[in-house]
Amino acid sequence: MTNEELYLAVALNGWKGNIARADKMFSGLSDQELLKEIAPGKNRLLYLWGHLTATHDAMLPLLGMGPRLYPEFDVAFISNPDKTQAEIPSVGLVRKAWREVNGRLFEGFAGLQAADWLSRHGAVSEEDFMKEPLRNRFAILLGRTNHLAYHLGQAALRPK
Amino acid sequence: MTNEELYLAVALNGWKGNIARADKMFSGLSDQELLKEIAPGKNRLLYLWGHLTATHDAMLPLLGMGPRLYPEFDVAFISNPDKTQAEIPSVGLVRKAWREVNGRLFEGFAGLQAADWLSRHGAVSEEDFMKEPLRNRFAILLGRTNHLAYHLGQAALRPK
Repeated sequence: MTNEELYLAVALNGWKGNIARADKMFSGLSDQELLKEIAPGKNRLLYLWGHLTATHDAMLPLLGMGPRLYPEFDVAFISNPDKTQAEIPSVGLVRKAWREVNGRLFEGFAGLQAADWLSRHGAVSEEDFMKEPLRNRFAILLGRTNHLAYHLGQAALRPK
Repeated sequence: MTNEELYLAVALNGWKGNIARADKMFSGLSDQELLKEIAPGKNRLLYLWGHLTATHDAMLPLLGMGPRLYPEFDVAFISNPDKTQAEIPSVGLVRKAWREVNGRLFEGFAGLQAADWLSRHGAVSEEDFMKEPLRNRFAILLGRTNHLAYHLGQAALRPK
């Protein structure tokens, strides 16, 4: 492996480890458990799971891997707080979307070479990227891994 | 910047961003607030802060930056759960140790070249490292950034 490939492999390991941890935790919960709050008055586990799914779905266009699969998740899980929307995607749909979105990302990751990760991500213009070369796909990967860890820490507080 | 340097710069940005976030949050809390639990029956904020400080302190030998500064923090903040030890370091000492440990890490980071991050970390033997080259210093950096984000997510749930 080249040095570039080593850097990337460590980061992809981190992503995979966090996805596996989240997958084991969320997928192992019953529909009823997913409707519980992580702590009194705080977000429900379903909200966290939907929020992570929507965030990962939005990585697809950011990383140049095609359009989003579930853009309608944003109203329920990103732009509004939990327990404010009358209708949100069902537990079954979140389960399905989580698998599908992360599966699509893994496929996309496999098609990228080490240097591809250093090209600009989808939310930065060519002009801005000339000035700010760290706004690349690799930054999206690390940022979203951190975001996942952040919410995993919260989900770990749920009543057991 | 070389590609290696770009990878590293993105990762160091992630570390710095999370440290800044934690620093703003914890350092901005009063002694009394730090003694509150993040949620009923869960860890106190002081425990999380001490736990992060001890974990970062342990990065010094792992990254070849000399011995730990506060090894005695482990009994209070790593090997035992919160609220089980009669004597734990004071809030004032945790405040001081957090600054000192992270300051020492920043100095150490500044002295490492991009390729240095790919050498083995202090808890893996040369023999094992030959077989598992991803057990390097860069993996420690990303792993500890994730660990920090995990507990920041928890601290964000505190009563405000």
